Amino acid sequence: MPSSSLYDRPDARLPDVARSDLAARYLAVRSLSEQLAAPLSAEDQCLQGMPDASPTKWHLAHTTWFFETVVLLAHVAAYRPYDHRYAYLFNSYYESLGARQPRPQRGMITRPGIDEVLAYRQHVDGALLACIADGGDEFEEKAAALIELGLNHEQQHQELILTDIKYGLALNPFDPVYRPRRPTPVGDAVAPGWVDFTGGETSVGQPVDGRFCYDNETPRHRLLLRPYQLADRLTTCGEYLAFMADGAYRRPEFWLSDGWAAVQANDWQAPLYWRPEGNGEWSVFTLHGRRAVDPAEPLCHISFYEAAAYAAWADARLPTEFEWEAAVAGQPVRGNFLDPAILHPQASGPGPGLRQAYGDAWVWTRSSYDPYPGFRPLPGTVGEYNGKFMVGQLVLRGGSCASPPGHLRASYRNFFPPAARWQFSGLRLARDL
Amino acid sequence: MPSSSLYDRPDARLPDVARSDLAARYLAVRSLSEQLAAPLSAEDQCLQGMPDASPTKWHLAHTTWFFETVVLLAHVAAYRPYDHRYAYLFNSYYESLGARQPRPQRGMITRPGIDEVLAYRQHVDGALLACIADGGDEFEEKAAALIELGLNHEQQHQELILTDIKYGLALNPFDPVYRPRRPTPVGDAVAPGWVDFTGGETSVGQPVDGRFCYDNETPRHRLLLRPYQLADRLTTCGEYLAFMADGAYRRPEFWLSDGWAAVQANDWQAPLYWRPEGNGEWSVFTLHGRRAVDPAEPLCHISFYEAAAYAAWADARLPTEFEWEAAVAGQPVRGNFLDPAILHPQASGPGPGLRQAYGDAWVWTRSSYDPYPGFRPLPGTVGEYNGKFMVGQLVLRGGSCASPPGHLRASYRNFFPPAARWQFSGLRLARDL
Amino acid sequence: MPSSSLYDRPDARLPDVARSDLAARYLAVRSLSEQLAAPLSAEDQCLQGMPDASPTKWHLAHTTWFFETVVLLAHVAAYRPYDHRYAYLFNSYYESLGARQPRPQRGMITRPGIDEVLAYRQHVDGALLACIADGGDEFEEKAAALIELGLNHEQQHQELILTDIKYGLALNPFDPVYRPRRPTPVGDAVAPGWVDFTGGETSVGQPVDGRFCYDNETPRHRLLLRPYQLADRLTTCGEYLAFMADGAYRRPEFWLSDGWAAVQANDWQAPLYWRPEGNGEWSVFTLHGRRAVDPAEPLCHISFYEAAAYAAWADARLPTEFEWEAAVAGQPVRGNFLDPAILHPQASGPGPGLRQAYGDAWVWTRSSYDPYPGFRPLPGTVGEYNGKFMVGQLVLRGGSCASPPGHLRASYRNFFPPAARWQFSGLRLARDL
Amino acid sequence: MPSSSLYDRPDARLPDVARSDLAARYLAVRSLSEQLAAPLSAEDQCLQGMPDASPTKWHLAHTTWFFETVVLLAHVAAYRPYDHRYAYLFNSYYESLGARQPRPQRGMITRPGIDEVLAYRQHVDGALLACIADGGDEFEEKAAALIELGLNHEQQHQELILTDIKYGLALNPFDPVYRPRRPTPVGDAVAPGWVDFTGGETSVGQPVDGRFCYDNETPRHRLLLRPYQLADRLTTCGEYLAFMADGAYRRPEFWLSDGWAAVQANDWQAPLYWRPEGNGEWSVFTLHGRRAVDPAEPLCHISFYEAAAYAAWADARLPTEFEWEAAVAGQPVRGNFLDPAILHPQASGPGPGLRQAYGDAWVWTRSSYDPYPGFRPLPGTVGEYNGKFMVGQLVLRGGSCASPPGHLRASYRNFFPPAARWQFSGLRLARDL
Repeated sequence: MPSSSLYDRPDARLPDVARSDLAARYLAVRSLSEQLAAPLSAEDQCLQGMPDASPTKWHLAHTTWFFETVVLLAHVAAYRPYDHRYAYLFNSYYESLGARQPRPQRGMITRPGIDEVLAYRQHVDGALLACIADGGDEFEEKAAALIELGLNHEQQHQELILTDIKYGLALNPFDPVYRPRRPTPVGDAVAPGWVDFTGGETSVGQPVDGRFCYDNETPRHRLLLRPYQLADRLTTCGEYLAFMADGAYRRPEFWLSDGWAAVQANDWQAPLYWRPEGNGEWSVFTLHGRRAVDPAEPLCHISFYEAAAYAAWADARLPTEFEWEAAVAGQPVRGNFLDPAILHPQASGPGPGLRQAYGDAWVWTRSSYDPYPGFRPLPGTVGEYNGKFMVGQLVLRGGSCASPPGHLRASYRNFFPPAARWQFSGLRLARDL
Repeated sequence: MPSSSLYDRPDARLPDVARSDLAARYLAVRSLSEQLAAPLSAEDQCLQGMPDASPTKWHLAHTTWFFETVVLLAHVAAYRPYDHRYAYLFNSYYESLGARQPRPQRGMITRPGIDEVLAYRQHVDGALLACIADGGDEFEEKAAALIELGLNHEQQHQELILTDIKYGLALNPFDPVYRPRRPTPVGDAVAPGWVDFTGGETSVGQPVDGRFCYDNETPRHRLLLRPYQLADRLTTCGEYLAFMADGAYRRPEFWLSDGWAAVQANDWQAPLYWRPEGNGEWSVFTLHGRRAVDPAEPLCHISFYEAAAYAAWADARLPTEFEWEAAVAGQPVRGNFLDPAILHPQASGPGPGLRQAYGDAWVWTRSSYDPYPGFRPLPGTVGEYNGKFMVGQLVLRGGSCASPPGHLRASYRNFFPPAARWQFSGLRLARDL
Repeated sequence: MPSSSLYDRPDARLPDVARSDLAARYLAVRSLSEQLAAPLSAEDQCLQGMPDASPTKWHLAHTTWFFETVVLLAHVAAYRPYDHRYAYLFNSYYESLGARQPRPQRGMITRPGIDEVLAYRQHVDGALLACIADGGDEFEEKAAALIELGLNHEQQHQELILTDIKYGLALNPFDPVYRPRRPTPVGDAVAPGWVDFTGGETSVGQPVDGRFCYDNETPRHRLLLRPYQLADRLTTCGEYLAFMADGAYRRPEFWLSDGWAAVQANDWQAPLYWRPEGNGEWSVFTLHGRRAVDPAEPLCHISFYEAAAYAAWADARLPTEFEWEAAVAGQPVRGNFLDPAILHPQASGPGPGLRQAYGDAWVWTRSSYDPYPGFRPLPGTVGEYNGKFMVGQLVLRGGSCASPPGHLRASYRNFFPPAARWQFSGLRLARDL
Repeated sequence: MPSSSLYDRPDARLPDVARSDLAARYLAVRSLSEQLAAPLSAEDQCLQGMPDASPTKWHLAHTTWFFETVVLLAHVAAYRPYDHRYAYLFNSYYESLGARQPRPQRGMITRPGIDEVLAYRQHVDGALLACIADGGDEFEEKAAALIELGLNHEQQHQELILTDIKYGLALNPFDPVYRPRRPTPVGDAVAPGWVDFTGGETSVGQPVDGRFCYDNETPRHRLLLRPYQLADRLTTCGEYLAFMADGAYRRPEFWLSDGWAAVQANDWQAPLYWRPEGNGEWSVFTLHGRRAVDPAEPLCHISFYEAAAYAAWADARLPTEFEWEAAVAGQPVRGNFLDPAILHPQASGPGPGLRQAYGDAWVWTRSSYDPYPGFRPLPGTVGEYNGKFMVGQLVLRGGSCASPPGHLRASYRNFFPPAARWQFSGLRLARDL
C-alpha cells in the first residue's frame, strides 16, 4: 500500500520467522480488517442493521473461522480448534459444515465479546504463520491456494464490513461518523461522452495462468458481441437528480415490473441514504456523516431496478457484463479503491477514453448471474463459494471505493439481488452502435 | 384442429359475412377458451387458488378486454366500450392503461357474473368480426398484427385457464375432476439415451419473415455453442422417485442456495400435487382427479430449483435455452399439446433422436430471462407485454400438454420465477461433450 | 313474523305430519336462511372476503352439519351421514370433532356447489322433521334442547350471512346491491339526552327458567353498580363526523394504545364502508349499495377502539355490559331487527327513556368477555360453543338490524375482538353520576 | 436493603447536602439499576432480543429521561436538557411527547455508548439531587409525587432489565451466565393444599392514604365475591411436568381457542427456556445459565394460555384478581423478591396458610385488565402511564424474584398480553367452594 494510505503498515507485526511473501501478504490482509474495525466501539461492532448485513465482529470472526476450518483443521493434523462452538456461530452458509447461527440473529451474539474475537484472530494467525514458517514448501504446496482463497475471501468481507456498518449507523437518527472526511479535491462535473467498441468475437473469463481467480470467472471462453458504446464515466448524482425531477419514482413506464413493485412496496423516493431537506435539496449519509448531495459525484447505493429505470429514461441501456469486460481488458486495475480511504465515490476529472473503469462504484450490468459454459464449481466445501448463488442475482463489475486494493481484475464478477442497495452500486450507460 | 379433438369445430358459429381466414382463426381461438371453461360451474370459474392464479372468468374477460382495448378502442372510431368499468376489472398489468383490480383479489369479483362475461365476449366478438367483414383491407392492414397478438395472447391464457383451475381444484379436499380421463395408451418406460450436438456458431431467435412471434424472440442473432448432449426424452417420474429415495429434499448439496431455502420455507417433499399414500407410494392430482404416480410419465409441476437439483444429482445439468433451440430447430412442431385433450404428460415411446421436443411438459432451461442483444420492446402499450418482466425469471421451452396447438415454435420463450410449480414444467438433462 | 316482513311464511312448506310447535319453529328458522341467500348468485355465495368472513354457502352447509352432527348422528341410531366428507368441510371450530377445512380457505370450496348444499339442507331437514313427527315425546325430550341450540346457532349465522356478504360485496369496485332499499321513513336527528340509573346491588345473567340461553349468560349472579347515566339513544353518524372533523384519526390522545396502533397499521380514516367523495362529503356502502352518509342514522361498523376513542373525545365513556343489562332489564325486546328487512340502522325518533335499546346496531361495552363467577361450559362438544373464546374479546350488547327477530334478550352477550368492524357495531355513551 | 443483599449500599454515594429521605431513596433506587447492569458488557447492554424486550442501556437511559422530562424540564426553569436529541431516542410510548425511535429498533442504537449513558445518568442525578437539596419544601411539594412516580417507574424497569436480558442471553447458543448461582437451600416439594375464603362484600383497590400507588389501582371500591379456595402455594414445575406427560401441548380440549392457536403457531412444547435433553429430561435456562428443571420449584415463564390450560387439566381455574387481592390483604409484603439476588423462583417450604403470596413468580389471574369503576387516568403526560393499555391484556399479581423490594402491595396490578412468556409469570390454582 502506498504511504498515502491511512492504514498502518502491517509488516511491523510480522515476526522474522514468517517473512515469506505469503506470510507478509497474509498479515497485511488480516491487519487491514482490524484497522477497519478500529474506529468502532464494541457496541458498534455487534450491530446488525438488517438480516443481509452482518456485525463487524462477526466478519472478524467468520474470516478467521474460514482459515481455521479450510486450512488448519483440514491440513494441519496437530491443530486443535480454538473453541469448537465457533463452528456454529461463525459458519456463514456452508451446508457441508453443519448447522449454524441463523443469519438474521448474528447481531444477537454479544458473547464472545470483541476482545475474545480478537484473541481468536491472534490465535489463528499465530498458528497459520507458524505453519508457513515451519511447514516449508510442503505446507505451502498444499495450503497456498486455500490461503490465497482465504485472503480474497477476507478482502470481500472488508468491503462488507464497511457497507454493513454504514447501513447500521445510518439507522441511528444522529448520523454518526465512522471516520471524519479526509480533505480531498472535489472534482467538477464533466459532460459525459461515449466510447465506441466494435464487438465481434471476444474472449471473457480468467485464463489459467496461475494467478488467483474465483471459480465463477472460469472457464475463459469466446463469445460474439455486437458493436456498442459505453459512457466514458459513471453516471453522476446530478444526472440522476434530473431523472428524479422528471418523475422517476412516479412513472412506471421506465421500470421493470419487479422494480416498480419494489418502488411501491418500499416507498422508494431516492437512492438509499438520501433524505429530502426541503426546498428540493437532498442530503446523503456517508461514512463521514451526513452532508449535501454533490451533483458531480458518481451515483451509488441504487438497486439494479433504479439503474435500469435510469437507463430507460436516458434512452440508453445497461451494458452486459461481457461488454464491460471487453471494454476494460488491458486497462490497469487502478481507481478510487479502499486504499486512499476516501470511502466515497469521487467525481471523475476530464480525460480521454473510459474513465473510472475501476473503483468508485460497482456498475450494475444487464447480465443475470448465470454459470459460464463449462463451469464446474471447486470440489469440496469451497465449491459452495459461488456456484450455488447462480440464480436470481445480477452481475456487478469494477469494484468500488470500499474494495481493497489488489482485489479486483477485469474478469471479476460480483453479484447481488436486483433490489439490493446497500453496496456501493452505481451505473454506467451503454448503447447499441 | 383434427377431428380427434374433444373440442367443437368453432366455424359452425362463423357468420357468412366473416368467412375470411382471419375471422375463422379468430373464432376458432375464441371458441376454444369457452370450451375450456365449459366443464366448470359458475363457482369454479370464480375461484382464485392463489395470487398468481386467476379465475377462469377473469381469463375469459381479460382476453376480451385486450381485443376491445388494443383493437376496437384504438382503431375503430365508432366503437363504444361495453362497460367502461371493465377497464379497471380486467386490465392485467398494463400501467399505461391505468389503475386496476389488485391481482390477489381477482377471485373476489363475483359480479359481473359468468353470464355477463359471456355476453361481453359475444359483444366484442360481434364488433370485431363486423370490422373484419366490413372494414376490408384497410382495417386488416392496421389491425391484423394486433389481432394476431390478441389471439396469441388468448392462447397463452388458455394454458393458464387450465393450470390455474388445476391449482384451485387441488385445494379442494375431495379431489374434483375437471374432465374424466380419456382412454389413452399408457406408454412404457424407455431407458434414456443421449443425443450429441456439435455446437459452434449458431443463430437463435425468430427471423423477420412475416410470421407472428413475440418481441422477446427478437432480434435473431448469432452466438457460439460448445459441443453438448441432450437427453433423448424428458425426465420421468420414476427417475425423480429415485432421486427422492436418495434424499433429494433432505440433502442441501444438490441445491442452489435459494432452492434449498425454498425447500425449507415451503416444506417441499415432492413435486406439486403429489401426496404420500403410505408404504412409500405417491398419488398425484391431475385434471382427471387423483391417481397413482406413473413412473413412466414425464415429471412435471416442479420448480426450476428442483429441476436443477435433480440435474446435479444425476451428474448432469440443464440445457441453456440456446442449446435447446439449436437442437430442435428444423423439427416439426408436433407433440402432446392441448389438442388431443389428454391434459397430462404422456410417456414417450421408443424412437430415434430427440423425442418429446415439444409438448408434454415445458423444460426449465439454465438461462435467465434476459433481453437478446439489440432487443427493443414493441412501441406503445403492448411494449409492456414482455420486456418489463426480464429480470428474476428463468426461460422454459417447448410447450406442454396444456399449450394450444399452433401456438409454439422453436424460438418461443416462456418464463416463470424459479420457485413456480403450478405450470406443466418439467426437465430434460444436458451434458457437456 | 308479521306480514310486513319481506320474508316468506315458511309454514307453507311444513308437512302435516310435522305441525308441532318445534317443527314449525325449526322450519321457520331454516327457511329464513335460504331466503337470505336467495338474492345471491352461486358465485356470490362462494365469496369469502376475508379470513374472518365465511361464504354464504358455507353458512348454509355448516348450520346443517351442526344439526346433523349434534342431533341426528348423536341421537338417531339409524341415521347415516349425507356425505361423510362434509364433516371436514363444514366443521367450524370443534376440536373434538376432528380436522377441518382451514378457515381462510372456505372460499376455495367451489364443490359441492350451491345446488348440492341445498339438497343437503333438504335431506337433513327431512330427517329431522321425521324424527320430530315420529319420535314423539321421547325424541323431543332428549333432542329438544339440542335442536333449540341449533336454531339459535343458525340465527347467529343468519346475522353473519349478512355481515359477511356485505364485506365481500364491498370489495367489488362497482358497489353491488344485495337488495334494493325499501322505502322507509327517514328519521330526523334528535338531540341526545341522558337517562339516570341508581346502580346498587343488581342481578345479571339469565335465570334458570326453562327458556333458552347460552351458557355464557350463566350463572345469574349479583353485583354492585355505582350510579351512572346512559345516553338515551345510539351515537349518530353526525356526531361521529364532528369527532372526525376534530381530528379523530390524527390525535393519539383519544385512543387506547392498541387502538392507535390499529389506526396507523390499517390507515383508518373513517368507519368501515365509508369513502370520501370530495368536498368533505362521505358515502357509505350498505346492503342497498352506496349512498351518502346520513347524519341522523346510528353510527355502525366501528371497532371497539373507535367507540372508546369517540367516548373519550365526548368526555364520556362506554357502559359496562352490566350497566347496559341493568338498564334494559324489563324493557320489551323490540327494535329494528332483521325482520322489517331494512338492513341498516335507522334514526331514532323522539321519545322518553332509553330508545333503541335493542336492534339497529350492537353497542360495544367496556367489558372484556370474561367468564361469569361460577361459569361452567356445557358438557361435551357444545362446551366449545362459548367458553373457549373468553379471552381477548369485548362484549357487545343489544343486537342489530341484522339480528333475527326472537333471538335477543337482556342477558345476551355477543363478543368480538376489539379491532373487528364488519359487524353492525356501534355505541351508546355512558357517564358516572 | 438488608445486609444479605448482593447489592451495594448506595448511600455511600450520597452527598451530605442531599441526605434527605427522598434523596436517599432516590439514590438507592437509581444505584440499583446500575448494579443490575454491572455484570453485562457494553455489547450485552445493547442487545434487544425481540421487539418487546429493550436493551439494558435503553432502560438506563429511558428511566433517566423520565426524571429529566417529568421533573426537571417540567418544574425547574433553569434546567437545560443534557442532549435534546435524547427525547427522540429514549421516549418509550408517550404520544404527547412527540415522535420516538421505533421500539423494534432500540437495539440499533449503538451510539450514544454505555459510557455516555452513564454520564447522562450522573448529570440528571446531580441536577435532581441539587434541586432536592436546594429547592427546599417548595420543590418537594410540587415534585415529590413525580419523583416518587419516577422511582416506581424505574423499579418496574429494573424487573424488565432482568427479564429482557434473560431473553437476549437465551438466544446465544452458549447459554451465557448473567450472574453465578448463589448457594441457596433447595426446598423439597411439598404437597399442595387449599385455603378457603368466604367471599362476600369486599373492598379492593388502594385507599387514598398518602402512600404511592398507580392510578390503575384506584378508586378503591366494593364488590361481591362468592366463596372460593386458593392453592396454598404456587404450581410447581413437577406438577406441570405431569400435565405435559398427559399430553398438554397436544390436546386442544384444555385450551382457550387463542391459546391453542398460539401453541400451533409457535410450536410450543414446554414453558419458555425449557429444552428437551433426551430421555424425557428437561433443562431450563436461568440467569445463572442452563441447568436441569427442578420439579419442586415454582413454574414460571408461561403464558396466560398455558396457565389456563393447566388449570383446566387440573380441574380447577385461575383466581380473579379480586379473589387474589382479598386473600392476601393483611399479609406482610414479603417474599423471594430481587433483593436476595436469587433471581429464580424457589420451592416453598412447608407452612400454614397461603404461602408465596408475594415474590417468586407473578400469578396470571382470570381477570382482563379493565378499568375500575370510576377510574380516571392522571392528568397530563403521565396519564398515558396505565389507562391506555386497558384492553387485550390480563392482570398478574404478586410480584416475582425479579421485583425490587419495596415495590409491591396487595392492590398492585401488573398486566401483559396473554401470549407473553418472558416475564417471571406462573400460576396459583383456584376453585369455587
